[in-house]
Amino acid sequence: MLMKFLPFLTWARRYSRADLGNDVIAALVVTIMLVPQAMAYAMLAGLPAQAGLYGAMLPLLLYAAFGSSPSLAVGPVAVVALMTAAAAGAVAEIGAPGFHLAALWIALLSGGMMLALGLLRLGFLANFLSHPVISGFITAAGILIAASQLRHLLGADVTGKTLPEVLPSLVANISGLSLLTVLISALVLGFLFWSRSGMARLLMRLGLSAPLAKLLAKTALLIAVVGSTVAVWGLGLDQRGIAVVGDIPRGLPLIGLPEFDLTLIQLLAAPALMIAIVGYVESVSIAQTLAAKKRQSIDPDRELVALGLANLGAGVTQAMPVTGGLSRSIVNYDAGAATPAAGAITAVLIGIAVLALTPLMFYLPRATLAAIIIVAVASLLDFRALPRTWAYSRADGAAMAATMAVTLLIGVEQGLLAGVGLSLFLYLFRTSRPHMAVVGQVPGTEHFRNVNRYAVVTDPSVFSIRVDESLYFPNARALEDRIQQALSDVPELRHVVLQCNAVNYIDASALESLEAINDRLRAADVTFHLSEVKGPVMDQLQRSHFLQDLSGQVFLTQFDAMQALAPQITSDCLKENRDTPQLAPL
Amino acid sequence: MLMKFLPFLTWARRYSRADLGNDVIAALVVTIMLVPQAMAYAMLAGLPAQAGLYGAMLPLLLYAAFGSSPSLAVGPVAVVALMTAAAAGAVAEIGAPGFHLAALWIALLSGGMMLALGLLRLGFLANFLSHPVISGFITAAGILIAASQLRHLLGADVTGKTLPEVLPSLVANISGLSLLTVLISALVLGFLFWSRSGMARLLMRLGLSAPLAKLLAKTALLIAVVGSTVAVWGLGLDQRGIAVVGDIPRGLPLIGLPEFDLTLIQLLAAPALMIAIVGYVESVSIAQTLAAKKRQSIDPDRELVALGLANLGAGVTQAMPVTGGLSRSIVNYDAGAATPAAGAITAVLIGIAVLALTPLMFYLPRATLAAIIIVAVASLLDFRALPRTWAYSRADGAAMAATMAVTLLIGVEQGLLAGVGLSLFLYLFRTSRPHMAVVGQVPGTEHFRNVNRYAVVTDPSVFSIRVDESLYFPNARALEDRIQQALSDVPELRHVVLQCNAVNYIDASALESLEAINDRLRAADVTFHLSEVKGPVMDQLQRSHFLQDLSGQVFLTQFDAMQALAPQITSDCLKENRDTPQLAPL
Repeated sequence: MLMKFLPFLTWARRYSRADLGNDVIAALVVTIMLVPQAMAYAMLAGLPAQAGLYGAMLPLLLYAAFGSSPSLAVGPVAVVALMTAAAAGAVAEIGAPGFHLAALWIALLSGGMMLALGLLRLGFLANFLSHPVISGFITAAGILIAASQLRHLLGADVTGKTLPEVLPSLVANISGLSLLTVLISALVLGFLFWSRSGMARLLMRLGLSAPLAKLLAKTALLIAVVGSTVAVWGLGLDQRGIAVVGDIPRGLPLIGLPEFDLTLIQLLAAPALMIAIVGYVESVSIAQTLAAKKRQSIDPDRELVALGLANLGAGVTQAMPVTGGLSRSIVNYDAGAATPAAGAITAVLIGIAVLALTPLMFYLPRATLAAIIIVAVASLLDFRALPRTWAYSRADGAAMAATMAVTLLIGVEQGLLAGVGLSLFLYLFRTSRPHMAVVGQVPGTEHFRNVNRYAVVTDPSVFSIRVDESLYFPNARALEDRIQQALSDVPELRHVVLQCNAVNYIDASALESLEAINDRLRAADVTFHLSEVKGPVMDQLQRSHFLQDLSGQVFLTQFDAMQALAPQITSDCLKENRDTPQLAPL
Repeated sequence: MLMKFLPFLTWARRYSRADLGNDVIAALVVTIMLVPQAMAYAMLAGLPAQAGLYGAMLPLLLYAAFGSSPSLAVGPVAVVALMTAAAAGAVAEIGAPGFHLAALWIALLSGGMMLALGLLRLGFLANFLSHPVISGFITAAGILIAASQLRHLLGADVTGKTLPEVLPSLVANISGLSLLTVLISALVLGFLFWSRSGMARLLMRLGLSAPLAKLLAKTALLIAVVGSTVAVWGLGLDQRGIAVVGDIPRGLPLIGLPEFDLTLIQLLAAPALMIAIVGYVESVSIAQTLAAKKRQSIDPDRELVALGLANLGAGVTQAMPVTGGLSRSIVNYDAGAATPAAGAITAVLIGIAVLALTPLMFYLPRATLAAIIIVAVASLLDFRALPRTWAYSRADGAAMAATMAVTLLIGVEQGLLAGVGLSLFLYLFRTSRPHMAVVGQVPGTEHFRNVNRYAVVTDPSVFSIRVDESLYFPNARALEDRIQQALSDVPELRHVVLQCNAVNYIDASALESLEAINDRLRAADVTFHLSEVKGPVMDQLQRSHFLQDLSGQVFLTQFDAMQALAPQITSDCLKENRDTPQLAPL
């Protein structure tokens, strides 16, 4: 039991010197990426740079102790940073003291929600977010993130949270851009995009081995940071309009709960839930993908617990909300992280960086951080997903398009809600109209098939219908409507047979519907029968009065039913057509 | 097309003198019930008596023109009156001018919503309300309705909307009750309960025919009203503490839109939607039950249009929201209503009553109206539904119990939302864990069955799993988790086969899951195969890249798959055990 919630007890006992070596190398590589990314995502979230760095300390230690994935690199990530900015921005201005307070409460609330959902094993709730919705949301969020960095990339006063706000602001303020800032942005962006493939190739041509070259290529972020910082410092560019990071407090974060404010908490509860679910869904899918490569498995509910604790840790250390990040996790995996200890070592290295290096970051240009963000989110954008999904399924494509449009035009929370709402709606719409087939006997056989697809024999006094779905509240009424229709269409109707071979479950709503059908048919002097009821469904029906009240019988097979209700038809059908092919499609 | 939305064109052409006779008799009987009930339900809704009477005029004419049920009696009903009182009470005090205005906007909004849902053919949305939720809600609403009438029955100042409010108020104010009021209440209640069966029996003993006796028994309400009014007037009881209805404006309602107030409309939108859905669900189920007796059918979406127009009519004539009522519809049916014209004739008779009789109702005691309400809601209470539903299905029982508890303790809207939320949650919970069976070959056959239920043969290098459900977003992740588990449990795993004979549909989320499974298995050097994929599912998969990317094959049958992947096993299995019984349960 203890093992279950403290997974590190399992791997810590077997921890070897080789594991330590691998974990340290992975941690070093991840730290080199994480320091600039953490500061960049803090800027994206509208928070001071240290909020990002602190988010890479205690949360990582907590995830290392409680998480089940050895490769997942937890910390600040772009989409959660954007959602944090939107949620905190709804209750306070960026830069106002209430803004950081709101971000801390978002971390605490979403952490508490993840923890509770994990302990209650409610991780399945994340299923509310269908793939098309999450994928459309991530692409739209990536566009908004890129748009939000225009002010830093251009050095112009471009503001706004949605495209209808950003674009006019861009047009109005483009003339105020700083050419020097644009130059730095362009150089850093160009270098980073080139480094993604070109740097490793270059290093290999210089004689390095392929794995080493790939590993060293991960220092591109560090090179961009150091290079642009040195340039600004050396040339005194901060005096010439280049915005820099400025003072970052030296030292470790204090541990303590932020100021309590019930109104604030009530306002933030709904966005915190959305951030928790988005963060969890992203993190679990990364962790599962990486675990599969090593034939390992992760426990989704335990992941929720670990991510929840990590966010609670963020909330008490003046940090921003965290989750598992895709690019750093892949780097962590590729660099050979053997156990979650790699994350703990990363946290220690970040702590050393905060203690020792923050003064050196004073001259780090904000344009560099913005370029780092742009490169990171470029990999999130998947514009081909929409046409691909639409081609596969109209309903899924519509849900994706709605999510993207509402996110871009109205806001991130509204976009997510619109997507979840529309996909649930379309799901219910489909579920409420199950496939139902009126069936007849295939001549020469004891088989029954859809009258619309096969040449079959029926008797006008018997209406046999097969429902290809379990019967439960979303579709209960559809069967009532269909049988009501048959009742008014066929005056000679004497019997209705419901063929239940595809029915795995009948809930209380469907049971009431069957009772209503039985009563209504009885009032019209028509008997109601079932056929081919599965064992578990029969067991459940026996716990109700339905079988006693049923005006007709339960037949083992549809053929038995027809033989009892329309004996001439069935025997004639068997005799006359014994030589015809089994299934003659119409 | 015109016929479709103006159903009266269909029946009006065939309308005969016999139909007219039947409709007039039914209308007379319904009017005798409707006049006192309409005033009583207006009192229940916290509105002046005329709001109920007006609700039985234009709305009935509109329903007669557009509705599809010949028997449904539309007008004020108890549950909708209670919900109206709750919603209007949230924005204004009873008796304040804003209260009636709110009720009118509730009628207009819920009417507009019904109309829109009907025209868009979205009637299936009512499926969100499962039977256990609606049944629990109606019983709890009945209790609250009865509790709300205590003040009129006792003549004491008992207030409150929920049980935790009403009960302390009852204890505190019981001493202030009016004995005379209690006497009138007891006499009227006793008479009405007796009349439900005793009056017809008495009339038959006096020599009347059974049908006539039953019809005349419907005058019980009228007798109670006339008797108690005459008693109050004759004995001057209104001077001795008996609350009476008082002045009702004489004349027809004016037609016009109520005052426009955007804030009010925004506050009322959500409760109006709930009232629309509850009203619709109740009405449709009554209409379907009565239609079935005559082998007729009703069109649920057309019913929505007609009920929507009826409520719009209520909103522009100072009336309360309306829907189809159970007891009056049964009376209407039993009295022989032949066509929807019966409703139109009822509306005319009500109009005559409003013009001629309102002065006579001045002395009608409110206690009589309260007793009429109690008798009407007594038939709504079904206390045995909860244990019955719980015994049948825990999930449905829990949803019903939650609906009842929240409705009684917190409020009607919250109760309905809690029920819908919990039933969707439990539905998703169940759906997210579909039945999955690991399958093996039944010795001596080509059949494959669940390894946990039958003695079957498997090969450790092949993991064959059957999912007994379509694959879609609520359950997509469950399959990923299960296969991930198998991958980490079985080191010798080489192949995974997904048997799809129960899969009717694969949505885009499940497709992504299958792609993720394929990628992860490939990364672990395991090939992924499908078997027994249905035709339509195969067609849909061909619209994606999945089949090209699949590391394994699609086999026609599970036996083909095993023969290709583990040939020794299958042939040994067929040979060695040819004589064993087909299915040997473990």
